[in-house]
Amino acid sequence: MTARKLFKFSLIFILISVLNQSTHADDGYRLWLKYDKIIDTEVFNSYKKLIKAQLIIGNSATSHIIKKELALAFKGLFGEAIPESNELNENTLIVARQSDLPPGIVDQTNHQVMDLNAESFLIKTASIHNKPVIIITAKTDSGLLYGTFTFIRLLQTYQDISHLNIVSSPKIKLRLLNHWDNLDRTVERGYAGFSLWDWHKLPDYIHPYYIDYARANASIGINGTVLNNVNANALILTSLYLTKVAALAEVFRPYGIKVYLSIRFSAPIDIGGLKVSDPLNKDVQNWWKEKAKEIYDSIPDFGGFLVKANSEGQPGPGDYGRTHADGANMLADALKPYHGVVMWRAFVYDHNIKEDRAKQAFNEFKPLDGKFRDNVLVQVKNGPIDFQPREPFHPLFGATPHTPLMMEFQITQEYLGFSTHLVYLGTLFKEVLESDTYAQGQGSTVAKIIDGSLYGQKISGIAGIANTGTDRNWTGHIFAQANWYAFGRLAWDHSLSTQEIAEEWIQLSLSHDKEVIESIKKIMMSSRETTVNYMTPLGLHHIMGWSHHYGPAPWIKDKQRDDWTSVYYHRADKQGIGFDRTETGSNAVSQYAKPVREKFASFNSCPDEYLLWFHHLDWNYKMRSDKILWDELCYRYYAGARNVTRVKELWNSLQGKIDDAIFTHVKQMLAIQEKEAFWWRNACVLYFQTFSGLLIPADLKEPDKTLEYYQSLSFPFAPK
Amino acid sequence: MTARKLFKFSLIFILISVLNQSTHADDGYRLWLKYDKIIDTEVFNSYKKLIKAQLIIGNSATSHIIKKELALAFKGLFGEAIPESNELNENTLIVARQSDLPPGIVDQTNHQVMDLNAESFLIKTASIHNKPVIIITAKTDSGLLYGTFTFIRLLQTYQDISHLNIVSSPKIKLRLLNHWDNLDRTVERGYAGFSLWDWHKLPDYIHPYYIDYARANASIGINGTVLNNVNANALILTSLYLTKVAALAEVFRPYGIKVYLSIRFSAPIDIGGLKVSDPLNKDVQNWWKEKAKEIYDSIPDFGGFLVKANSEGQPGPGDYGRTHADGANMLADALKPYHGVVMWRAFVYDHNIKEDRAKQAFNEFKPLDGKFRDNVLVQVKNGPIDFQPREPFHPLFGATPHTPLMMEFQITQEYLGFSTHLVYLGTLFKEVLESDTYAQGQGSTVAKIIDGSLYGQKISGIAGIANTGTDRNWTGHIFAQANWYAFGRLAWDHSLSTQEIAEEWIQLSLSHDKEVIESIKKIMMSSRETTVNYMTPLGLHHIMGWSHHYGPAPWIKDKQRDDWTSVYYHRADKQGIGFDRTETGSNAVSQYAKPVREKFASFNSCPDEYLLWFHHLDWNYKMRSDKILWDELCYRYYAGARNVTRVKELWNSLQGKIDDAIFTHVKQMLAIQEKEAFWWRNACVLYFQTFSGLLIPADLKEPDKTLEYYQSLSFPFAPK
Repeated sequence: MTARKLFKFSLIFILISVLNQSTHADDGYRLWLKYDKIIDTEVFNSYKKLIKAQLIIGNSATSHIIKKELALAFKGLFGEAIPESNELNENTLIVARQSDLPPGIVDQTNHQVMDLNAESFLIKTASIHNKPVIIITAKTDSGLLYGTFTFIRLLQTYQDISHLNIVSSPKIKLRLLNHWDNLDRTVERGYAGFSLWDWHKLPDYIHPYYIDYARANASIGINGTVLNNVNANALILTSLYLTKVAALAEVFRPYGIKVYLSIRFSAPIDIGGLKVSDPLNKDVQNWWKEKAKEIYDSIPDFGGFLVKANSEGQPGPGDYGRTHADGANMLADALKPYHGVVMWRAFVYDHNIKEDRAKQAFNEFKPLDGKFRDNVLVQVKNGPIDFQPREPFHPLFGATPHTPLMMEFQITQEYLGFSTHLVYLGTLFKEVLESDTYAQGQGSTVAKIIDGSLYGQKISGIAGIANTGTDRNWTGHIFAQANWYAFGRLAWDHSLSTQEIAEEWIQLSLSHDKEVIESIKKIMMSSRETTVNYMTPLGLHHIMGWSHHYGPAPWIKDKQRDDWTSVYYHRADKQGIGFDRTETGSNAVSQYAKPVREKFASFNSCPDEYLLWFHHLDWNYKMRSDKILWDELCYRYYAGARNVTRVKELWNSLQGKIDDAIFTHVKQMLAIQEKEAFWWRNACVLYFQTFSGLLIPADLKEPDKTLEYYQSLSFPFAPK
Repeated sequence: MTARKLFKFSLIFILISVLNQSTHADDGYRLWLKYDKIIDTEVFNSYKKLIKAQLIIGNSATSHIIKKELALAFKGLFGEAIPESNELNENTLIVARQSDLPPGIVDQTNHQVMDLNAESFLIKTASIHNKPVIIITAKTDSGLLYGTFTFIRLLQTYQDISHLNIVSSPKIKLRLLNHWDNLDRTVERGYAGFSLWDWHKLPDYIHPYYIDYARANASIGINGTVLNNVNANALILTSLYLTKVAALAEVFRPYGIKVYLSIRFSAPIDIGGLKVSDPLNKDVQNWWKEKAKEIYDSIPDFGGFLVKANSEGQPGPGDYGRTHADGANMLADALKPYHGVVMWRAFVYDHNIKEDRAKQAFNEFKPLDGKFRDNVLVQVKNGPIDFQPREPFHPLFGATPHTPLMMEFQITQEYLGFSTHLVYLGTLFKEVLESDTYAQGQGSTVAKIIDGSLYGQKISGIAGIANTGTDRNWTGHIFAQANWYAFGRLAWDHSLSTQEIAEEWIQLSLSHDKEVIESIKKIMMSSRETTVNYMTPLGLHHIMGWSHHYGPAPWIKDKQRDDWTSVYYHRADKQGIGFDRTETGSNAVSQYAKPVREKFASFNSCPDEYLLWFHHLDWNYKMRSDKILWDELCYRYYAGARNVTRVKELWNSLQGKIDDAIFTHVKQMLAIQEKEAFWWRNACVLYFQTFSGLLIPADLKEPDKTLEYYQSLSFPFAPK
């Protein structure tokens, strides 16, 4: 038996052992809402002392959910139920809207609750007869639910709850998941199975996981979900499908989650029998008005439309010589009577336009600033290309004082190793949110644009392309759950640190052991940089496999569109590598505000991370590290791959300290990630070497396979 | 709020309640291997008395699995482990190959074990020092594993184990699941999510459910699995995919499960670079020999090939003017050195041949009897058309004394309501197996042909098209698990009664309460007849929706192939309805042996169930019931639909008596089934009425919608 076979043989037996050890091996389904019994006696006793009874006031659907959730949490965390009380006594947990709070308590919260908005909550230790009571209050049921989940999280993470005083309001109003889910249940860029929405059995079969999906989202403050792919099928707007959509909306409603739909701009033609979908055509306008009415008749709190128009082959107002504003405004007018919004995507680029793809969205949307209705948001990807492992922030951020911009992050790891690479995206999200656009001088961060504070906008929004699917653990990789979690937490409060979110998630999901937490946090915090290094260091981008985007393929060229090839982006030649986006090149830097522009434009001040994004540099260019560019590139690739091996070893040291099933799951995934990191490293270094003609630094091990080998690989059914 | 909305509102809250009540709501994942604690004290005590220790001898991978499975079962059923013993004491459970049995015991089993074959087992209460011990023994590890699962089932179903003496051998050698799974993870005719096989992550990621799949199959005696669709992609035979197949084979091997593949007959062209795939071409023959060698190098116990050739557009030997025997024999020769088999499907029909589709397989294969190599089985669907709710047995059964025929059943409910209709297929399988072909006189049942006993064939086989998928409960509908279970149990022993299998399954899966068992058994036992009645009573067939086969569509006509339309099969006209397959018609009856032929040929002796299969009869034809045909047809349709309502009511009476999550799941499914049963009833009766011109009997309620309404329905993304 070869070593490899032996390894697999043992692995299968570890698996068999894990599975058979217990009927309750952790399959990851419960996400961060595990509610396992508290194992710290001191914490346990302190909680039991402070929560002797519970008083939950209210009789709405949401109140019902709050009761059930607390019952589930208490039963799990404490191993027994907490008695319900009908009156307010000491050491009681009270959950009530402010208007329902008993008189003796309301005075202690009044001044704080005044500042609350419809989604905010207050968790506070108040006193009655000089003894403590814990209050969760809010102006609305949604606020109460958020407060409840936050309180449960405090318990799950063993926080001191003896002197609580937490006021929390979401900084951003629309906090959405975008599902790129098709009606046939395939998911574009989905790596965790297939679509959660079982359209065929809807509206009659309400799958239990719909409810757990809503719980998970509500627990982190997500308040909206776009059910279908932005490459939309018009059928979603037929009455057959709207009935199904309404059934999901009904499930999500008491969790404070609104349903939105991606629409196909040509729907009036596709399903409406019209000849055109020109936004200035009266029949078309009326069709959308009628459609909006039909939707709101069955879904009174429907959120609105997400639109991908005139992008990558999708129809749009441009088909009739109209602007994006014309298109968006027509839809906005249809939705306005019902308080719906339009989220119009800025992800547009045209290969017939001979202009750097990175510049096109700005060129198209900047002139439209001020031309959109007040219920339109323009949804902008975090960077100007397409969710690469690292991109500079999108130049539209800050450039449209009169247009609320919605952030579009990608939680699903299209360019970051699918669902087999452990990459914590909290750091990516945060890097973007903290980027300073200087649009209104220093401190004009992307976050302040998104949350509406920089320009005083009334609506604000953030969207994450979901990484969920039918896989039992929701996201394929257990650690991908952390990305869904981090997205929600940052959407609620972008000032949270990524460390604290990681630590929270680890405690909720994996361990309360301080050493284990530290080890895993270390793995998570460095993971994105590691991946950037083994995939696209120094500002490289878009050099992945053709179409499916699986694995490295910097050699992709001569396709139907230049801007879908790799060579378009890395521009490697005998002399050097990188995309010149300064004045001597595409001058994309000019789209940024002055201090940013100047920083990026000079290779002296441009950070290493963005160097080849903005500059074409000689292979012998001397880096800050004193290494020449070629050597630096090699060292980065090697460091990235090596780090995966280190992470694997660190993970192995955790065996026995975390759940066996999860340990084995991640162990297998890390083996794949390591294999693929080496694949990326070797393929890219060998390929770029054909241009540089330089040797791989002597202290680095030569790749054991040839470039031809890597170029020969093909993956006909890789998910895409 | 309308009544319908109120209903849905309540349902969602029942669901929320169910989910939140417990962290361990039964999601159906554990199938019939639940191992919940024994709730009958008397049974519990008697078991604990008889199993004070366990002694499992052996150190193979399978022995390891036996240990783990028993540990899991004991921990679950008894709430604690049973001590392991190193020596043989009283009240001990011994699991050992016959050759490893301790001397004092071996004498007590010798005469029985002599008759065992490689898969048989003996479970016996023996004695040591005049005290009882329980022995599970066999000649092989597989036998031991089957014995172990059987013993565990005895415990799960609360059987008396004080005087055991069970010798069990499978009646059929090859007991296979066929997965119609594509490489992109869609499943043809799959209604339980997507393919279990995550090809993209294989061979590196071994999903835990692969192991549970193997456990489930081994527990009911299934010993082979064809991983991919009979409409095969040739890529499965590339080394990229064979590595993945080998990884699955490695998981399944210790469970006694062999892996098989569906092959595409043109693979030598598609992936081999040859110009032809002519089975008489030497290069083609060599290509397959080389391919077989490559497969067996990594999968030494590979089972063999399943082939769909020259059927529904698939390539085959007919493309070169060769026979099915030529094609099968070429493959058989390639597999022969490694003891592999070829399963060649008889499901062939050609719309260019102007002959009743029901006759074509017989016409093609009967003349080839005796022309196949000895490692070829011809795999025949249970009936001559295509898995209809009811068909007479296939006329090939009994007609090929020199060719082993393998049964092909469909467990997935392509024509029986997908995964939303509760239809217990045990009765369908059994009806076919017990059908008497009279091929060698009375008693020549289909079962005896399949198990090889009628003609003394050396190999025998039975296959079921799997109904498994990524749905957490494996099969979509909880009750569809019973069909997987029943298939396995009958494949092992076709003499089992369907009642006893149903009762077993209910006890393993739902309840030990006698009344509950009786109620559910009643539901199951009548379910298939109910479905036949609301879909295709009196021998009607193939009148379902176009392409996806969802719902009724007896009006389908004028398609590219007549034999894919509905009117081809029901032949309704002003005068009557039914397909004349007697001498005055297609004379398909002639393919059956004499007594059967005569019974079917006369409408006086033809059973009502097959009447319109074999006869075209006047609408006014007087039935045995004394009703005219039209009225009888209506009454059957109405009775079928009405029975679903009754089942729904009976199910509702079980609330609180079975797991809440399962109760709610089935409740929702029955609501769908009821809706669809009425849809079938109304659509068919209204459609056939356009021919009969007769009134629906006065005591039956008129459909509340028009035929045009039903004909207008379309389901663009129904699973197919």
